[in-house]
Order: sequence, then C-alpha cells, then structure tokens
Amino acid sequence: MEKADITIHNCLMLPMDGKNRIIEDGSIAIENGRITYVGKKARSPSFRGEYNIDGHGKIAMPGLINCHTHLPMTLFRGVAEDQPLDRWLSETIWPLEANFHPDDIYYGALLGCLEMIKSGTTCFADMYFHEEKVAEAVEKAGLRAVLAQGIIEVGNKERGERMFKENVDFAKNYNGYADGKVTTHLGPHAVYSCSPEILAKVRETASRLNLGIHIHLAESQDMAKEIKDKHGFSEVELLENLKFLGPDVLAAHCIHLSKREMALMAKHKVKIAYNPVANMKIAAGMAKIKDLINLGLTVGIGTDGPASNNSLDMFESMKIAALLQKLHYQDPTVLPAETVVKMATIDGAKDLRIEDSIGSLEVGKEADLILVDFGKPHLTPLHDPYASIVYSTHGDDVDTVIVNGKILMENRKVKTLNEDKVMRDAEKTAFDLLTRAGRVR
Amino acid sequence: MEKADITIHNCLMLPMDGKNRIIEDGSIAIENGRITYVGKKARSPSFRGEYNIDGHGKIAMPGLINCHTHLPMTLFRGVAEDQPLDRWLSETIWPLEANFHPDDIYYGALLGCLEMIKSGTTCFADMYFHEEKVAEAVEKAGLRAVLAQGIIEVGNKERGERMFKENVDFAKNYNGYADGKVTTHLGPHAVYSCSPEILAKVRETASRLNLGIHIHLAESQDMAKEIKDKHGFSEVELLENLKFLGPDVLAAHCIHLSKREMALMAKHKVKIAYNPVANMKIAAGMAKIKDLINLGLTVGIGTDGPASNNSLDMFESMKIAALLQKLHYQDPTVLPAETVVKMATIDGAKDLRIEDSIGSLEVGKEADLILVDFGKPHLTPLHDPYASIVYSTHGDDVDTVIVNGKILMENRKVKTLNEDKVMRDAEKTAFDLLTRAGRVR
Repeated sequence: MEKADITIHNCLMLPMDGKNRIIEDGSIAIENGRITYVGKKARSPSFRGEYNIDGHGKIAMPGLINCHTHLPMTLFRGVAEDQPLDRWLSETIWPLEANFHPDDIYYGALLGCLEMIKSGTTCFADMYFHEEKVAEAVEKAGLRAVLAQGIIEVGNKERGERMFKENVDFAKNYNGYADGKVTTHLGPHAVYSCSPEILAKVRETASRLNLGIHIHLAESQDMAKEIKDKHGFSEVELLENLKFLGPDVLAAHCIHLSKREMALMAKHKVKIAYNPVANMKIAAGMAKIKDLINLGLTVGIGTDGPASNNSLDMFESMKIAALLQKLHYQDPTVLPAETVVKMATIDGAKDLRIEDSIGSLEVGKEADLILVDFGKPHLTPLHDPYASIVYSTHGDDVDTVIVNGKILMENRKVKTLNEDKVMRDAEKTAFDLLTRAGRVR
Repeated sequence: MEKADITIHNCLMLPMDGKNRIIEDGSIAIENGRITYVGKKARSPSFRGEYNIDGHGKIAMPGLINCHTHLPMTLFRGVAEDQPLDRWLSETIWPLEANFHPDDIYYGALLGCLEMIKSGTTCFADMYFHEEKVAEAVEKAGLRAVLAQGIIEVGNKERGERMFKENVDFAKNYNGYADGKVTTHLGPHAVYSCSPEILAKVRETASRLNLGIHIHLAESQDMAKEIKDKHGFSEVELLENLKFLGPDVLAAHCIHLSKREMALMAKHKVKIAYNPVANMKIAAGMAKIKDLINLGLTVGIGTDGPASNNSLDMFESMKIAALLQKLHYQDPTVLPAETVVKMATIDGAKDLRIEDSIGSLEVGKEADLILVDFGKPHLTPLHDPYASIVYSTHGDDVDTVIVNGKILMENRKVKTLNEDKVMRDAEKTAFDLLTRAGRVR
C-alpha cells in the first residue's frame, strides 16, 4: 500500500509523454503535488489515504497551456467589434486602458482565470500592465502562469526607461510567487514599440537573470514595413543584429516572416506562440506553422487577449489552429490532431521553458491535469480520442481540473473561486471603467 | 387576459425581424405553436393558462438553421482523420456506407438530432440515403427539417434512374411529414456525380412539383476541372445551359466560382450554404462570401456532415464563418456579428424557402426559438449580444429549445429523447457497422 493524496482510476489517458500512446483503463496517483503513478490500472499498486476520482467515461490529459494572452482584457470582450484595427485601438482600447485602476486588472484577470479553469487551461503566458494584480488573481485561482509586465516605449525614452524598470522589478519580485506556480518573463511589447536600446537592455538583463522574454513578433504587416523603412532591416533581422534571439524568447504571432527570417528563428531556436483566432479576427494574417515546425521550431498555441478573440477556450483555438493550416497548405493531412494536442500541452510547456515540470503526464512531474467528460452527444461515438479533443470537444466538456495536485474544479464546480462573485465583480468593474471613460451604453 | 400556451418574460431579445433591434426586458407569448406576442414586457398584455419560462439572464433568439449536413454521418465522427480526401472516401467512408443497414441511418440521425437540440439548432437541411429514416428521427426528436434523398449516378445510368425515382418518391411522400415540420427537396448530389440528363429531369420535376433542389456546387477544384475538361463548361455554366439554376436551388459550398459564375448565380438568385469548417478541414478552399453577398445573394451557414467537421455546433460555425472571411479579405469589418446571426437564422430560412414560417421572432411565425444562458464566465461582461453570440457562445450555453411551440429542451434537459439511450444506440450501431466492414479497432 502506497500513500497518495489523489488517485484517478478507469480513465482513458493521453499522457503526451513522447511515446505516442493512449492508455485505456488507466490510473494516476498524485502525492505532494506530483504525479507518482501513470499507467494501466491493472498494474498499479494499491493506495491508501487517497481522495479517489472516478475517471470512467473521461479522458485524462495534461492541462492545456495558453502561450499568449492579455488576461485583464476580458473586461473589453465585445466593447467594440468588427472595426479596423487602428480605430479599435485608438477609439476604444487605449482610452479604456488610460482609465484603468490597478484593481480593475485584478478583477479582469480573475474572470479570465475562472474562464480558463472552466475550459481546462492550467497554465498561461500573460503580458500586460500592473502584472502584479494578475499574479494575485493567479494565486487566488490556484493556476500556474508565466507573467511579464509589458514595456511600450513608442518613442518616449523616459516612459521606456520607467516601464523597463517596472518590468525588471516585477520579474525579480514575482519569480517563484504563489509557491512557485508563478514564474516571470521580461515583456518588451514589440520591435515597433521598443527602441533597439531598450531591446538590447532586455536581452542583457534576461541573460544575466536567466529569465525568458515574451514579445510580439511579425504580427502586423504595416508595422513590419514601418520597421523596414526606418531601420533597413526586418523585425527579425533587427533582433538578430542585436543578438536578441535565443531559445529563451517566446515570440507571439510570427505571421509575416521571409524564408531567411524563418531560418534565423530556427538557428536560435526561438519559441513560437501561434494565435489563430485573434490573427483571423483582426485580419492580421496567418503564421506558416507547417514550415516553422519543419524547420524544427517549437510552436505552442495561444488565444491572445479576450478582447480580440473573444474567448480563452483553448479547445476552440486547437480546432481552428488545425483548420487554418489545412486550408492554407491545401492539404487535410497538415497538423493532424495528435500534433495539435502536443502543441497545446508539452510544446506549450517547452515554449514557457517549464517542460521539466509540466506538459505531460509522467511520474515526477507536477500534477497539472484535466479530465474531459466524453459522455456527450457531440463526443459520441469516440473513435479517436485525439480527433475528439481537437475537432469536437469544447471547454465546457472539461469536468475536473487539477493544478499542482490541488483540485481547482470537480464536476464543473470551481473550488477556489466564488463563480457568481467573480462574474459580478468583473461586470461592475467593466461598467465603472466604461463610465469613467465616457463610454456607458 | 389573453390565452397562451407558453410565455417567456424578462429576456434579452434578438428578434432578427429586419428592424435591427435588440429588445431588453422582453416577453414572448406562444399559442398553438405560433408566436402571438414579441416585445417589451412592460407593453405586453396579461396571459392566463400559460407555462411560464423565466428568461432573466438569457438571450432569446430564433432557433439556428443548419443549411447543409449529412446527419447520419455522426456515426463516422473520428473514424479516419487528417487524411487526403480520396483516401478518406475510398478507404473509409464508401466501404462503411456500403455496409449500412437502414436502421443505422436512424440511429445516426437520432444522435445528430440530439446534438442539434443541445446546441440550439431547430431546423436543418439534409441530404443522404434512406432519408425516410432521417425523417423518422426528426419526428421523434421534434425538430424541423428540409430533407433530400441523394442521387449519385457516377456514370451508372441504371443506378442514376433508380436513385432519381427514389429521390422523387421520397420528396412526394415525406413533404409535410411530422405535422408539416418535415418538407422535402430533390437531391442531385453534384454536377460531377449526376449526368446532364438526370439534372434536367430533376429541374423539370422540381418545377412541376414546386420542390426545392439541394446540390453540392463548386466544392472541389479537381472535380470542377474534370467537368470543364469533359464538357467545355464550368459547373455553373453547365447548369445555366440546362436552365437548372433558380431561387429554389440550394447550392452548398460555392467555393470555386469565377466572376462570371457568381454573376450567373446572382441572376438566378440561387441560395447558398456556406460551410466554413468542413471546407477548411478537408482543405477544399474558401467561398468568397463578401463578394456573393455584395451581389445580392442569400447565404446561410451549414456545418456539413459531422464526419468532416466533426461537430454540428452552429455557434462554432458562425464564429469560423466570420473569422475566415475577415482573414481572406484582410479586413476585420467583413461579416460583422449581426450579419452572421442573420445568416444563421432568417437568411437560413430564406435558403430553405421557409422564411414565411420561421427564421425570426415575429407574431404569426411558428415558434422556433432558443434561450442562451449568458450567466457564464466566458460570456461576461455582456457588452454586445451579437458579438457574444458569434464570438463567445458555444452550443453548450443553450438552455432552452422550442420548436413549433413545443419545448424540446429546458435547463439543458432534452424532453423528447432519452439522451443516454440515443448515445448508447449510436455507439453500438457504429461499432457493429465497423465490425461488418472489417474495421474494428
């Protein structure tokens, strides 16, 4: 008899452990926040003292990892829709952000955490302002996150210096926060919004402090052209000249890349966050994911901020991630379902440089996992679990969420948050913010 | 005091009645299957004898209309994924279909009906074999449908004649079935699978019997090329020469159309079913919906068959419908949310030629409507109901479904079907079918 805090029996398991296996009638044991058994129930030892979860009719898999979002923007979901990007930013998003109170960030982020728990995301990479408020929400919710305070210099050196300092302070102070569930990245917003001087300082600081860097890259064709006109180099070439690129850089979007730029990305093993929904919704374009993967690059999936998606549901993003690549390459075999599940789990963990801790169901890893209830009409019959997860499952099908061995949701009831209160607080926050900004309906 | 069978009070209403209005604190009354009141609760008369549904926290809108599917293919969901189209058809779909028993069609269709009720679809256009079994499932579920028995001649004149006769017999015998909730179309599968002779007979019969025609058009580039090589005309030109085109033709896909072909479609007011998910998944290409709408064409949305989607969730198809067009035209203003809701409701009804009966919440229309519960984290805050429906809502958010004044689902509990039995029967049917076809896992 071995001791366990939690056991799950009789589940169908997608361990995503690199062995391409599906385990039927599987068991998982969790002790002190870590996975201590993964495998056939028939071969598992007996456990004592545990809280047992019945996994019958459920798929057990690693918690999903959302590699790029701006969580507090839940508050702006639906505020201004179907508009040209420049008008959306200048008339709505920036005026609203100028009216932010730090607590607004907390309530927006908490709503985002609730939405992520309810749709099976256990870890995410975020970039925003007042990121310490996002950290507080993450701790309250019990999630795992890699957070970066954004730097937007946009030609104002003083502002750039101040934001650079805040970004480093945040990264130092919050690395390891919430019992280690929060780690930090530096957050230069983009090549077009940060000067080469700031970017060079970010690179030097990241290397010295062993921190990752979260940045937007090659998202907008117009901005890419502006960079080229101004510097004579593309965004990626400019970063190459600054010796900025490396395996610790998480680059979101990567849409407008030449072959030479892709090769530079591959040479430096830059990590990529693919955000198909937001890229389509704001008509930014499409990352050539098949080409990037063929060059050996690691690609995770992100939802991007909920104002430009308008959802944090990674199941939806997984489906659209696959559909978009099949269409572009005119080939239904591109990004098969198992590859997409890999992108949303273990490759996401690699993107965030925490693949030793999470991203797969393996003994010794931290217990971040979800159970998907496949006893639903739209998931019947279950011929292929990978296809079911990517093409048919919604976030609402997630039954149970465990992070670091703690049950955050069971039978769709969230244990760490008062769901109604989180929604009411966010509604009130959004209403007050719109009132302050003179935008009340 | 007026009599009503059902009243719904305090809901947020999207009537889709052409008046571009959102009604807050609205009421709906239903009597003898028809809508007798739609408007502000404050202005509504008092009702007696009614079954009252509390609409607080819910969006009331017309039931969604799925303009193109092959419902019994639920059984094949996930059987063979991410494969080239020819291999998928020749190695999996056709061998399985060759082993069909008529009852398999019933159980597959019943599962599809259950999935549609649970995701807010109240009416659909279907084309398949043994369509009388689909009609039985539709009656049992309480849904509304426009059904067509398919004709696939593929060079075999005798087969073509037999299927043509079956298709006409079905259309005659089942038009008005299930208390009028089932109507029928003729179902020539496609220009490449039916000879000009059969197509001419279909046109003549449709005009004589006043039936619509459901056909696949311009879906596959390869097939379009084959037609051009064989006949010297494109698919649309061939149909024009046969005087086949008209406002009673429901053409699914319409991907590969030249400007001249689009103009011909517009001249004849052909109805279009746009199937963005399946078109992307099998890498068929993308219909140019903005151009088609600008020409005055009516475009509804379809999921296509659940084997090539793999979902019947019209909310998902609405979102992807919008995203894909924005990306293609590089313009986030293309297909705004309200237009997409229109496509999935009243324009879908026009596609099926039943816009006088359904597709909007208006007094005198048959009561086909749904309530969407927006008290969910991913639907909070609710700044814009149209954006919420298109970009954030899942099928699972549908709380109540009413067809023809009968409540098919309330609080997500389906009243017309035993959900567990429908799923178990479909699972067993699929397993037995795969066993007969030598494909058991």
